[in-house]
Amino acid sequence: MTNERINGQWRLKSRPVGMVKTTDFEYVEVPVAPLGAGEVLIRNLYLSFDPAQRGRLNDVKSYAPPQPIGEVMGAFAAGEVVESNNDAWAVGSRVVGGLGWQQYATVADGSPVMQSLRPVPDGVPPQLALGALGGTGLTAYFGLLETGEFKAGDVVLVSGAAGATGSVVGQIARIKGARKVIGIAGGADKCAWLTNDLGFDAAIDYRNEDVAARLREECGDAIDLYFDNVGGEILDAALMNMALNGRIAVCGGISQYNEAAPQSGPKNYLQLIVRRLTMRGFLVSDFLARAPQAISELAGWIAAGELKHTEDIQKGIENVPQTFLRLFEGKNRGKQLLEL
Amino acid sequence: MTNERINGQWRLKSRPVGMVKTTDFEYVEVPVAPLGAGEVLIRNLYLSFDPAQRGRLNDVKSYAPPQPIGEVMGAFAAGEVVESNNDAWAVGSRVVGGLGWQQYATVADGSPVMQSLRPVPDGVPPQLALGALGGTGLTAYFGLLETGEFKAGDVVLVSGAAGATGSVVGQIARIKGARKVIGIAGGADKCAWLTNDLGFDAAIDYRNEDVAARLREECGDAIDLYFDNVGGEILDAALMNMALNGRIAVCGGISQYNEAAPQSGPKNYLQLIVRRLTMRGFLVSDFLARAPQAISELAGWIAAGELKHTEDIQKGIENVPQTFLRLFEGKNRGKQLLEL
Repeated sequence: MTNERINGQWRLKSRPVGMVKTTDFEYVEVPVAPLGAGEVLIRNLYLSFDPAQRGRLNDVKSYAPPQPIGEVMGAFAAGEVVESNNDAWAVGSRVVGGLGWQQYATVADGSPVMQSLRPVPDGVPPQLALGALGGTGLTAYFGLLETGEFKAGDVVLVSGAAGATGSVVGQIARIKGARKVIGIAGGADKCAWLTNDLGFDAAIDYRNEDVAARLREECGDAIDLYFDNVGGEILDAALMNMALNGRIAVCGGISQYNEAAPQSGPKNYLQLIVRRLTMRGFLVSDFLARAPQAISELAGWIAAGELKHTEDIQKGIENVPQTFLRLFEGKNRGKQLLEL
Repeated sequence: MTNERINGQWRLKSRPVGMVKTTDFEYVEVPVAPLGAGEVLIRNLYLSFDPAQRGRLNDVKSYAPPQPIGEVMGAFAAGEVVESNNDAWAVGSRVVGGLGWQQYATVADGSPVMQSLRPVPDGVPPQLALGALGGTGLTAYFGLLETGEFKAGDVVLVSGAAGATGSVVGQIARIKGARKVIGIAGGADKCAWLTNDLGFDAAIDYRNEDVAARLREECGDAIDLYFDNVGGEILDAALMNMALNGRIAVCGGISQYNEAAPQSGPKNYLQLIVRRLTMRGFLVSDFLARAPQAISELAGWIAAGELKHTEDIQKGIENVPQTFLRLFEGKNRGKQLLEL
């Protein structure tokens, strides 16, 4: 066969201990095998990078099984069907799904990856289908409105506010009538972006400001809803500033993901009693049955210019591990993607 | 005035740093002053000891103000009105309220202490009005049924299970149709008491057994409701064994109360995401409007022999500080009281 396709892949080489490193992954090139019955070949256009992928690098039981060593790193991606032996997926279709850190994905009929495939709606750029109109937007939407039981008039605090999920959370809160939306992010630039461009009422720069003091100033004892992406000291500071009967939606704990073992929980957790708080974790996968309604509402806000979506797009298969590390270095603004 | 009454009092002498000591309190005797207008003089019969009193010894903001140094230690007690200039409280009435660690309480009209007074219902022993038919029973009742959203068929875990609140929690869960009730307590005697006398299905001795291993054995990944009185390592072990969508009612964290500063939160708290848990703190004071209905149900169970109440009764004003320390030494079984 002439003109054989070559598939560049990033595989997990070894389990990171502590901070993940680029050398925990290895790049290999393999020829794409001829398609079998029912199979679909997808050329990836954009790879998605999510903090939760870090958890899968550890060999511990969680909601998703650990990433096997030596296999292509699991990841969401958007791509285009380039060959198909499956009537459900026509050549030329654009899709998102768990296609992995690679240039091509051969998807077997009925496999978990095929079950994860969703068409990218007409008129939606594929990068948006991975971000504000994909898992990220849904995470923000359901975490805030369902898990966090958002009510109009709430004072809302969001950590990781310049990240993919946090930036959408704060904007939904504003759109839905929050009394005040405060974001916590790393760096003056990100903070200025939150208040100037995304309509946050205030932003706290955790790298250069005293978070506890600024929280007290901005929303002392008044936070009705804290959407937590980071855990650690920021969660502890938030606990000391919650309103009575406040709610904490636990979306993630990126400050903890690169610890070799769980090191520290929220030492101020007994504020749950003092302030009668509810702290609840969630996964977006629990809400997928209601995704179409949420996507429709998110798309309406984007079309109306009320919700800004932002993607941080790196380029080139060779830059995949470095792009992943950007999440933990706090370099990304909005959704972290890589264009192939 | 002949035959003047002398009031023995225990006052806070200095704020404990770390483990509370008997020398943090001092005993004084003062004459009881003649009653003023509207005042009531109560002779205390039983003093109540509660882990939450430890929190008030620290100079930190909480739901109750800190215990002032040099003043009578705040505490619930049951007593009898021996003199009264107040029509609402006749001589001979038996009452419970925030009467403090002392032999006599002079209660000013309209004072917070007077507002805390409740009559002991006819036929109820005063020690019961401080325990299973008082704040302790209400804490167990509302914490389990409301905060913990108990449902028949739940697997329920209770820590501090041989204590005043925990022993009632486990029994209510049994009465209300739990699938399984597991208690955690310190010592083989307490554990045998839970299963043989109180009808717990299983008990784990945290002093002599591997709690994590035993939890996995008894209720691995199946705990629907964890009623937490202790925090610390036991909370962490419980987090690793909760069922999907489980609930944690945070009643207390006695393992943390004698730390000089908050040391450790639940390091496994990200299980809130993995298992989609809800963790909620509460105070019994939030439910007082519904206390009569709860007391009536608790009294019915006691009368029917379904709910056993247990008091650990020490004697003598001189033994007050030592009795308080019993809570943190794990010596008490059931409600810790002292008879005057």
